[in-house]
Amino acid sequence: MEYQYSNRTNSMKPSIIREILKQMGDPQLISFAGGNPSAEAFPVEEIRRISEELLREDPVGALQYSITEGDPALRQVGEAYLNQQYPIKKEADDLIITSGSQQVMDFLTKLLCNEGDVVATEDPAFLGALNSFRSFGATLVGVQMEEDGVNIAALEAVFTATPKPKLFYTIPNFQNPTGVTTSLAKRKAIYALAKKHGVLILEDNPYGELRIAGQAIAPIKALDQDGLVVYAASLSKILAPGLRVAFCVGPKQLLTKMVVAKQSNDVHTNVWAQRVCQRFLTQCDMQQHLVRLQAIYREKAEYMMAQIDEQLGTQVQYLHPQGGMFLWLTLPAGVNMQTFVKKCLAKKLALVPGNAFFVDDAAPCQSVRVNFSTPSRQQIQAGVAIMAQVLAEMNS
Amino acid sequence: MEYQYSNRTNSMKPSIIREILKQMGDPQLISFAGGNPSAEAFPVEEIRRISEELLREDPVGALQYSITEGDPALRQVGEAYLNQQYPIKKEADDLIITSGSQQVMDFLTKLLCNEGDVVATEDPAFLGALNSFRSFGATLVGVQMEEDGVNIAALEAVFTATPKPKLFYTIPNFQNPTGVTTSLAKRKAIYALAKKHGVLILEDNPYGELRIAGQAIAPIKALDQDGLVVYAASLSKILAPGLRVAFCVGPKQLLTKMVVAKQSNDVHTNVWAQRVCQRFLTQCDMQQHLVRLQAIYREKAEYMMAQIDEQLGTQVQYLHPQGGMFLWLTLPAGVNMQTFVKKCLAKKLALVPGNAFFVDDAAPCQSVRVNFSTPSRQQIQAGVAIMAQVLAEMNS
Repeated sequence: MEYQYSNRTNSMKPSIIREILKQMGDPQLISFAGGNPSAEAFPVEEIRRISEELLREDPVGALQYSITEGDPALRQVGEAYLNQQYPIKKEADDLIITSGSQQVMDFLTKLLCNEGDVVATEDPAFLGALNSFRSFGATLVGVQMEEDGVNIAALEAVFTATPKPKLFYTIPNFQNPTGVTTSLAKRKAIYALAKKHGVLILEDNPYGELRIAGQAIAPIKALDQDGLVVYAASLSKILAPGLRVAFCVGPKQLLTKMVVAKQSNDVHTNVWAQRVCQRFLTQCDMQQHLVRLQAIYREKAEYMMAQIDEQLGTQVQYLHPQGGMFLWLTLPAGVNMQTFVKKCLAKKLALVPGNAFFVDDAAPCQSVRVNFSTPSRQQIQAGVAIMAQVLAEMNS
Repeated sequence: MEYQYSNRTNSMKPSIIREILKQMGDPQLISFAGGNPSAEAFPVEEIRRISEELLREDPVGALQYSITEGDPALRQVGEAYLNQQYPIKKEADDLIITSGSQQVMDFLTKLLCNEGDVVATEDPAFLGALNSFRSFGATLVGVQMEEDGVNIAALEAVFTATPKPKLFYTIPNFQNPTGVTTSLAKRKAIYALAKKHGVLILEDNPYGELRIAGQAIAPIKALDQDGLVVYAASLSKILAPGLRVAFCVGPKQLLTKMVVAKQSNDVHTNVWAQRVCQRFLTQCDMQQHLVRLQAIYREKAEYMMAQIDEQLGTQVQYLHPQGGMFLWLTLPAGVNMQTFVKKCLAKKLALVPGNAFFVDDAAPCQSVRVNFSTPSRQQIQAGVAIMAQVLAEMNS
């Protein structure tokens, strides 16, 4: 039979990263391509203990159907957790549980975008988000990233263009893939522009707690007095991604509709996982856990930067990220980036070609994304050595 | 701020059932409204033991990111499980894991339907499926249900109308809400018509293993030699719905695209839950477990039918279902069904008004859906007594 797909299906793209990762059965392959938390970062003992406890105390509750909005106790403790440092959830907001924050991208696009509607995004940006927008036939318009966040003049040009974007997508902390942290001044400027032009902001903050340098900066959501910001906070990077649990905070009216979208998608998020998260946030010292994670990632990031400085020297350029999981390496002008990535893969080092993260992924690009959270010290050393070797070959 | 929604958002409907269930904090309320498995049906001991085992043996594997298609071991054991009695998954098919079979409805509609495209469905039908179709702006066309499945002449008329439906939705075993089992002759006729007219079939089989009378009948998917059937098999009703794990079997080409849709929605299904299911299907005696479930539901169904016969007598009409979780009660001609439901609710019995399950939910309807899987014997007796009382009041 010949299948007749919807128009939007033609604009769907599989994630190049997840395609790369699927090939990775080879145990000799070093991956700088993924974005997985370090295995040592998982609070295994606590999750094991909590799981046993909750399956002993209320197994039926953990196994039965639940409500779409999420486990009431988790929503409550999630609100307290998110509002600790900054006022994220206001009176006019609601907080719901989603199966990872990827669902927030998907549902929000479904709610807002007809085919051809514009979504503005940092450019480059998180590929998974771009693919969610594309999967509903949205037209992506990129706004150039600078070292302290998007170019504000370019953002205003996009906000005043016709058609006006339905939303603007941003990761203000340690952006994926660039590692850029948006300055407070730019966060304020983004909010002011969104308010002036009536554009919704989707603020994605998966890495915010993984700060390894510098001072915390208020989320854009903390500035929101106008119901302009939908805020996604994932537990994937700070507890465990296999759980698929995230918080979405946003204007009540919007979230009521998001609940309907979720109802007809997965009904509700896995209950065991919600309760594990609820008990972890209630019983465990999250601050202490985060200090441990920050130490792990600081050490990995610094080791990778030291290795790059030592082995690649001034051949490559990169920004020192204040957190997150990635470095964004820019290769020398004469080096073909795609060839570099292929040659590294032939020597068993996986990297993601930087063009994958751009709205126009066919445009020329000199950068690669390098993950430092997953590989071991030994793998970091060996992987950077492969990059040095390939660069030497390509320069000779 | 005033939010500008997409066109499809206007066609989204919240589930009336889930709205009813949310109100049910009242412990005195008896619910015949839900579709929850009986709490005693959960294999609590096994799940507890398996969970401890897998969090001890490979905690990192259970907590880390995984692949969108689903846990490879679960996909393998799932295939063996589904193919035990009938050839469900053929060479040309793939099998993926979804977060409940509700996701299959959602993703398949996303892949196939532009706004306004037609989805043909049994009428009445499972509300969650109708709401998924509606949420993408599909136009629903209902095909009248009879005691042995849809009216075949009506189905052919729908298949030959313009525009041709993108898919036909059916629950052949113990349909929700009517309890109807589609006969083998009608399954063959449905398949032949779908083949003749090139319409995809979405066969939903959440209740198939919960047979309490009669003989098993081959699924439509077992007849499929032409890549015409997408088959959804959930573990929600036979293991536990809180896990959110289901199997989707269908033509490889279609499922490759479904994986892309899932990637940009929830990335993958909760890994712990997938591994619990994998180990349950591997280590435990599923046949024995199902025999236990069938006994539980047979006893509940028979008790409810006996109570109805005793307390309501010939005032109501219903079909004896061969399995599943529901009775479809038709009230006497003179009784206003909506008033009946409201009066029952005032006496603390929740029922779902039958019109909720129809494509045209504003059309007159004399039926209510009654769930027998969740209430206890005592609640069944008391709930039927409330119905009898309300009928007596309304007749007097």
